[in-house]
Amino acid sequence: MKLSLKEIAKLIDGFIEGNSSKEILGINSLDDADSSQISYIISEKYKESLIKSNAGAIIVDEKLKQYCKSNAIVVKNVYLAYSILSHEFKQKQDITDLKYGNEINYPSTKIASSVLIGKNVTIGNNTIIHHNCVIENNSNIGENCLIESNVTIQQGSTIGDNCVISPGAVIGSEGFGNARNFNKKWSPIAQLGNVSIGNNVSIGANTTIDRGSMTNTEIHDGVKIDNLTHIAHNVIIGEDTAIAAKTGIAGSTRIGKRCMIGGAVGIVGHLKITDDVVINATSTVNRDILKPGTYTSFMPIMTHSEWKKVSIWLTKLDKIASFMKIKLKNIR
Amino acid sequence: MKLSLKEIAKLIDGFIEGNSSKEILGINSLDDADSSQISYIISEKYKESLIKSNAGAIIVDEKLKQYCKSNAIVVKNVYLAYSILSHEFKQKQDITDLKYGNEINYPSTKIASSVLIGKNVTIGNNTIIHHNCVIENNSNIGENCLIESNVTIQQGSTIGDNCVISPGAVIGSEGFGNARNFNKKWSPIAQLGNVSIGNNVSIGANTTIDRGSMTNTEIHDGVKIDNLTHIAHNVIIGEDTAIAAKTGIAGSTRIGKRCMIGGAVGIVGHLKITDDVVINATSTVNRDILKPGTYTSFMPIMTHSEWKKVSIWLTKLDKIASFMKIKLKNIR
Amino acid sequence: MKLSLKEIAKLIDGFIEGNSSKEILGINSLDDADSSQISYIISEKYKESLIKSNAGAIIVDEKLKQYCKSNAIVVKNVYLAYSILSHEFKQKQDITDLKYGNEINYPSTKIASSVLIGKNVTIGNNTIIHHNCVIENNSNIGENCLIESNVTIQQGSTIGDNCVISPGAVIGSEGFGNARNFNKKWSPIAQLGNVSIGNNVSIGANTTIDRGSMTNTEIHDGVKIDNLTHIAHNVIIGEDTAIAAKTGIAGSTRIGKRCMIGGAVGIVGHLKITDDVVINATSTVNRDILKPGTYTSFMPIMTHSEWKKVSIWLTKLDKIASFMKIKLKNIR
Repeated sequence: MKLSLKEIAKLIDGFIEGNSSKEILGINSLDDADSSQISYIISEKYKESLIKSNAGAIIVDEKLKQYCKSNAIVVKNVYLAYSILSHEFKQKQDITDLKYGNEINYPSTKIASSVLIGKNVTIGNNTIIHHNCVIENNSNIGENCLIESNVTIQQGSTIGDNCVISPGAVIGSEGFGNARNFNKKWSPIAQLGNVSIGNNVSIGANTTIDRGSMTNTEIHDGVKIDNLTHIAHNVIIGEDTAIAAKTGIAGSTRIGKRCMIGGAVGIVGHLKITDDVVINATSTVNRDILKPGTYTSFMPIMTHSEWKKVSIWLTKLDKIASFMKIKLKNIR
Repeated sequence: MKLSLKEIAKLIDGFIEGNSSKEILGINSLDDADSSQISYIISEKYKESLIKSNAGAIIVDEKLKQYCKSNAIVVKNVYLAYSILSHEFKQKQDITDLKYGNEINYPSTKIASSVLIGKNVTIGNNTIIHHNCVIENNSNIGENCLIESNVTIQQGSTIGDNCVISPGAVIGSEGFGNARNFNKKWSPIAQLGNVSIGNNVSIGANTTIDRGSMTNTEIHDGVKIDNLTHIAHNVIIGEDTAIAAKTGIAGSTRIGKRCMIGGAVGIVGHLKITDDVVINATSTVNRDILKPGTYTSFMPIMTHSEWKKVSIWLTKLDKIASFMKIKLKNIR
Repeated sequence: MKLSLKEIAKLIDGFIEGNSSKEILGINSLDDADSSQISYIISEKYKESLIKSNAGAIIVDEKLKQYCKSNAIVVKNVYLAYSILSHEFKQKQDITDLKYGNEINYPSTKIASSVLIGKNVTIGNNTIIHHNCVIENNSNIGENCLIESNVTIQQGSTIGDNCVISPGAVIGSEGFGNARNFNKKWSPIAQLGNVSIGNNVSIGANTTIDRGSMTNTEIHDGVKIDNLTHIAHNVIIGEDTAIAAKTGIAGSTRIGKRCMIGGAVGIVGHLKITDDVVINATSTVNRDILKPGTYTSFMPIMTHSEWKKVSIWLTKLDKIASFMKIKLKNIR
């Protein structure tokens, strides 16, 4: 891929300071970029790298423009501009053995010959389905989606437009519901709901999203979910929420819009998290969060010898308080 | 599917109060059910929904029957009755391209044409194996099992009757054992044991169960394991234990019968957990649990600004105790 | 497999005390081994089992040799010797339908017929690729590798010699990077880097390793990674580090050489962990670790009733300190 600064400025809605016909062959970091590449700076703390950079051009904002000695493209939101430009340099996954879709059923799709498609499935225009995927009965996949290899989409799932499902993900797996009988044996509950995924959603590699027990599990428009994440039955995730890898969300929890959930977070079931909540990585969410803001819960790392000493007292905090005659009402 | 209340009452061992010829087309919640659907109530806290429900019939127990103004089916254990009935309304996964088993080797099975079956494998009657599964040499799968798509069952694994393996699960992966040599390089230990799974077991999507190092990893009858769970080599899980998603159990730990392990729990290796233990979600189990009961260990969620203040002291608890001249023997 | 003690002693660099022509058919534990099997002892705490063992031979070190009443093979590092010997008794996965590689493109490989290989891929001698794997364009796989079933290796990935990739792993999945636009919608960042894996690396079942955003994600020689682990974009893992199952490492973190990371550890992004660091299972690493040693951070398990009492005070530690007029400077 080769783009002139003029073409790039148009793509990212910026204005050029320097040579608009300069040609760019790739993106790289300030430190590593050479004169054929473009770079970007998102924080003043990289000012030294900016000054020393050999990049052929740099995407900057008004504030940092002054330190740029190469060609610059000035934009309002540098990171957003970089995200848009990055797709121009992405190598397309043009793997062999993708066939243009059957003219009648799936016009303008590309589906690998190893894909198994069930009955009563619809697949939208320009959607690509890679190798060894299974699309079960009564599923609907929208337009412009990329379903990567080894994905299983189970019966009755709905996926909107412009979605990306990474390899190994499972959509519509059976929710985990079991009733105990009188002998304390488990009687599994058939999960009769489906999974409903909106537009512009991405689902990470080997992530699992369970079908609902009666109503649907819902992933709303613009949600981004990372790898190895588990979304249990009847969870609802609001628009434009992002969830980092290895997070687990238990059954029937509702998460608001524009939340950012860190990696390896555990959220227990039947909770309500409001809009614009940030949960830091590895936290446990054990109660409703009804106020926007940033929340945390984990033990900070210590040397093991420190931890051994501390952990003795961790389990006796109430007794320390009692011994010291501290009452909750006194310390609020 | 269409069932009369008479047929349903027979299935779930209940008695009808109302019109026994009433026909039911589905199950739904008290709030959402219409007159063609049946619902259920498991707790008095949903009494208002019960009273207002438009359901055509409701499964209740003796105590809540009085509030039911529609047709009722009265049972002893409502949740159990619901679990049994739910299967009648489950849409069967009748995906195309499943072939009836080879008459000689696997009579009365349905195996997708894309499944690879190794040497010396046995598969029981009425077992269904979906697309792209790999069943390696010397594995034995019982009767009435459902092995969903993209499952890998590695050599020498045994699976009992009536088991469900969800998509992407890996049974019999190599246990994680490595010895260090004199240069601190790792020398992997070949894992010579297998995985042995009993009857009526379910394994979640993308869950992994490692083979044992010398003896087998054992999952006993009636165990239910959710998605993205890791069971390490030589773990033994007792009958009718349920394990929620994203839990990890390290090597050689033995878990008793009828335990309930919450989601994202971490259990370290070489421990013994007795029968009837409940571990709450996201807890770390770092010692034997020899007494039945409910156990917990996680930090409760706080605002990040609270956590920043608290976390400073968390790592200094022993020093606080020492400064306050608190001795362990004084606070027991 | 049948080996004489003489042959075994040669393999594991030990000397025999007893009958060197004794034939051994397998390995087993001290308690379970019969006279046709060999066992080993790595700690004096198993002395009683050693004395009572019916094993046909036992691998011991100089110190424990005295308690051995059967044939012995004396070595310097018993566990290392066992790791080497174990491979002799491992049943080879000789599944049907593996074809010898195309003479021109992949001589001396064995690749299942269901494997999809993209354009411009190289695969080294003696490498085996099992069923339903997808090897995307521009990937390079070294010699003597074992790629198990249902693995997806995405475009541009490099894998060295003698590597094992367990079933369901995904190498080169898209890194999780999204920029927010002015409406708080996410604009995904195309990940332009690749994954580079060294020699003698093992990757566990259903583990995911993301490609870098601009530079590569790097897994250096001798690294061992267990199941269901997530390695984010631009992470670098130093030589001979071992990572247990269910761990997650966030973006751009660099981990040193010879580290041992326990199971279900969470390591936040952009950190530096030096060489020879041990992190205990389920810990959160929330800061750089610049000094070798062992580190821990988790809440110890308690009964739920204890935890309920303790957790009230956990979130008020700073207030307790303030109420007691404890200052940080006084307790250091």
